[in-house]
Amino acid sequence: MKRKDYIAKHLSSLIGSDKVKSSPDFCISYSYDATPTGGRGIPDVVVFPETPEDVSKILSFANEELIPVYPRGAGSGLTGGAAPENGGIVLTTEKMNKIIEIDEDNLGVLTESGVVTYTLQQEVGKRGLFYPPDPSSYKYSTIGGNIAENAGGPRCVKYGVTKDYVLQLEAVFPDGTITTLGARTVKSVAGYNLKDLIIGSEGTLAVITKAYLKLIPTPEDVRTAMAIFDNVEEAAQAVADMFKAKVIPTALEFLDRNSIVAVENYAKLGLPTDAGGLLIIEVDGYREIVDILIDRALEVCKKAGAKTIKKAKSEKERKEIWRARRELSPAIVQLKPKKINEDVVVQRSKIPELIKGTYKIADKYDLMVVNFGHAGDGNIHVNFMFEPHEADKVESAVRDLFRFTIELGGSVSGEHGIGFMKKEFLPLEVGKAIEKMVAVKKALDPNNILNPGKIFDI
Amino acid sequence: MKRKDYIAKHLSSLIGSDKVKSSPDFCISYSYDATPTGGRGIPDVVVFPETPEDVSKILSFANEELIPVYPRGAGSGLTGGAAPENGGIVLTTEKMNKIIEIDEDNLGVLTESGVVTYTLQQEVGKRGLFYPPDPSSYKYSTIGGNIAENAGGPRCVKYGVTKDYVLQLEAVFPDGTITTLGARTVKSVAGYNLKDLIIGSEGTLAVITKAYLKLIPTPEDVRTAMAIFDNVEEAAQAVADMFKAKVIPTALEFLDRNSIVAVENYAKLGLPTDAGGLLIIEVDGYREIVDILIDRALEVCKKAGAKTIKKAKSEKERKEIWRARRELSPAIVQLKPKKINEDVVVQRSKIPELIKGTYKIADKYDLMVVNFGHAGDGNIHVNFMFEPHEADKVESAVRDLFRFTIELGGSVSGEHGIGFMKKEFLPLEVGKAIEKMVAVKKALDPNNILNPGKIFDI
Ligand SMILES: Cc1cc2nc3c(=O)[nH]c(=O)nc-3n(C[C@H](O)[C@H](O)[C@H](O)COP(=O)(O)OP(=O)(O)OC[C@H]3O[C@@H](n4cnc5c(N)ncnc54)[C@H](O)[C@@H]3O)c2cc1C
Ligand SMILES: Cc1cc2nc3c(=O)[nH]c(=O)nc-3n(C[C@H](O)[C@H](O)[C@H](O)COP(=O)(O)OP(=O)(O)OC[C@H]3O[C@@H](n4cnc5c(N)ncnc54)[C@H](O)[C@@H]3O)c2cc1C
Repeated sequence: MKRKDYIAKHLSSLIGSDKVKSSPDFCISYSYDATPTGGRGIPDVVVFPETPEDVSKILSFANEELIPVYPRGAGSGLTGGAAPENGGIVLTTEKMNKIIEIDEDNLGVLTESGVVTYTLQQEVGKRGLFYPPDPSSYKYSTIGGNIAENAGGPRCVKYGVTKDYVLQLEAVFPDGTITTLGARTVKSVAGYNLKDLIIGSEGTLAVITKAYLKLIPTPEDVRTAMAIFDNVEEAAQAVADMFKAKVIPTALEFLDRNSIVAVENYAKLGLPTDAGGLLIIEVDGYREIVDILIDRALEVCKKAGAKTIKKAKSEKERKEIWRARRELSPAIVQLKPKKINEDVVVQRSKIPELIKGTYKIADKYDLMVVNFGHAGDGNIHVNFMFEPHEADKVESAVRDLFRFTIELGGSVSGEHGIGFMKKEFLPLEVGKAIEKMVAVKKALDPNNILNPGKIFDI
Repeated sequence: MKRKDYIAKHLSSLIGSDKVKSSPDFCISYSYDATPTGGRGIPDVVVFPETPEDVSKILSFANEELIPVYPRGAGSGLTGGAAPENGGIVLTTEKMNKIIEIDEDNLGVLTESGVVTYTLQQEVGKRGLFYPPDPSSYKYSTIGGNIAENAGGPRCVKYGVTKDYVLQLEAVFPDGTITTLGARTVKSVAGYNLKDLIIGSEGTLAVITKAYLKLIPTPEDVRTAMAIFDNVEEAAQAVADMFKAKVIPTALEFLDRNSIVAVENYAKLGLPTDAGGLLIIEVDGYREIVDILIDRALEVCKKAGAKTIKKAKSEKERKEIWRARRELSPAIVQLKPKKINEDVVVQRSKIPELIKGTYKIADKYDLMVVNFGHAGDGNIHVNFMFEPHEADKVESAVRDLFRFTIELGGSVSGEHGIGFMKKEFLPLEVGKAIEKMVAVKKALDPNNILNPGKIFDI
């Protein structure tokens, strides 16, 4: 019997044949994620477990037979996390898609891991509750994928990342052990914090089957504004001063010169194309305070040198302001046939240096670079735009960018993870800690069956 | 040569004899922490490293010679975490007590781990910055000890626990490897989150030498009030409703019937001794909002059935309200010669059940129980008061309490950790996850030299 048929047959007998697919159409559909380079291999089978027990059986079998297993949520990852490299089993959580309980008394929700982020946000929203983490992929990404990547988004500057909302996990380890990690209480210090170790481990340590998430009351109101600056330094100064002025914005999005030009040419919003930097500022909270906060924020911008300031006076104007950010992605793909988007992160005070560094790198390789992102937490999306024949130059430019980011004391990934895309740079950033990471991987996945080849090679 | 002399001689040659003490007075002084049962052994030597390199040398030597090392901050732990059990080396961080840099632009502070919590809070406070974690021991506990225990305090309900403020750690592993874990940026998903694994690991995985802590702007203003209820249920209802009314208090402290009686008899504050529950509520934030928030909170209390309500109109009245909580500790020790204080935690909605459970347990063993604590996060300090000859009964009562807490889905420790005191109950709470914790311990400390015998036996 071929390996593929052998695996499919065994798994079918373990969890039921309706949950096991091995036809080429399925295997090809599950061979890649949203990573621009595409996948790197075709799985032998795709499994659709419905319970933690199913997951346990799949993993136990794979662990004994040394078959790689690739956990997968919606496949929206940007660093190849869900891509199967060496055949084996793709384990998708899409049938574990129930919200089990919304607990209004304790402000929590118990959910299966395959639930789509947006669905969960809508459901809790109906009860006046709020799940803040908002990766731009929220309309299709899963809670499990968000947890495995510790996803962030624009709102993180005020509300924190996915990790800050996960109180408890149900996770299945490679040997099939089903565990509950963490506690549903806000505090708990009983034993090691394996929960936070699993969060962000990109499916290499355990498969997440359920999560108990912390919710907060929906903010009562929101205010939005835009400030335009002559140069990056002034915009960055405004960012730093805003926190000192005790305004913690809900979103603080930055667009650099090239971004402004690109979006203006594309969407004709009336932005000054000679500006050096643009901030979109949003504050939320109690009805009685939002106006005061947005005015404080704009006061800070003016002091830092903002030339133009615009405050949304209606929902329509608010949407108009956000268009500058929303139309960016479609706008920049007009610039060149290809782009590579990196999500480096530095401390807020280092933003001007980072931006100037990207311009230098772009000059060196004669490339176009467009920078925008979550300035409030120093997380800048650096986009190199290029022609197909320039791919090699871009690779070098990205390498320079990562080196420079690490020199600035930053991190090569604020949100998107390492996957197979950034493996080369992890040791540069974390130094000797990588030995300890590998030790942990070996302890929890001794046969290296769970998402092998991701984060680091062992 | 005696073992003690051998260890002292070698360590002196490695880090300098002024940093190595082995006289009986030193060894006895460092043989116990604040745990009521006292220590369980006397160390051979006490070392006072001044740099991560010193720590690395001590650990490498101990790791090769299989000598246990007990990290220690201020020794204020309540579960025996810093107590040396089998001789060996006590490693105190008290000479690593420098605040290295306060970074006002990025709202962060880089500090050595031996700095006292209060000192750090004072220093950052001078620049208008705020480090929220506030264990009641903050006047002497160290940042390293807070991190190793993931310490909490009254303010956690709004501001979170120590873990929420640690962005980056310098940590030395048992083999002497000096690592930097995490990033100074708010976001980072580069590799495994070993930082949060080390936080709360009670000195069993690595010695923390430095930390980069996140700060926030000091809240502009604060309001304080008290609400008194006929019974626990009403008080608990008020707690749940407060969050639903979108009031996230800075502190929400609860006193049960016995606590009210004890503090009233002791301090004569004019509290009704027939009340069933008392809440102290504090809100902070922008000047323009604090009055609105405290009124909302009191509205909620009234609706839930509060009979008496008192709002502080001056700093003096605020202090007066807090006296009900502050005088509690001295008040209850008047009740009986001995007490045991457990810090169990349950979801907010389970507080009434927990409190009633403690009364039942007290009845069963004919003991007195006094409950108070951080109701906002379900963290209740359960105090059994007893005569010396009742020690056995209390042990049984505590066992019942832990079992009952776990039945309620709670945790045996909200703040104080496991140490050697609660080892027996950890498997009850975490189930099979303990196997994975042990696997991680073995991977990172293969010779079991770092704080052996704490959290679990291996
Ligand atoms: C247009 C676009 C915008 C994006 N914007 C953002 C953004 O703003 N912020 C951000 O952080 N990310 C962003 N991303 C990246 C991506 O959407 C996130 O990483 C998301 O969390 C992935 O979720 P997913 O369900 O698609 O996971 P997948 O892509 O399927 O998997 C991601 C990783 O998680 C693992 N995994 C998935 N489910 C589980 C599970 N149940 N148990 C264990 N491991 C699991 C996989 O093995 C893989 O390593 C964006 C992506 C796109 C395409
Ligand atoms: C009166 C009183 C009130 C208290 N109130 C609270 C409270 O409200 N909330 C709360 O959470 N706790 C409270 N505690 C418990 C205790 O103060 C905290 O756990 C505190 O964090 C311990 O800090 P420490 O420096 O004294 O650590 P120690 O007691 O010296 O050590 C505690 C643990 O941390 C380890 N450790 C210490 N330093 C390091 C380091 N640098 N690297 C690695 N491991 C290290 C030790 O090995 C030990 O396991 C209270 C204690 C007392 C006596």
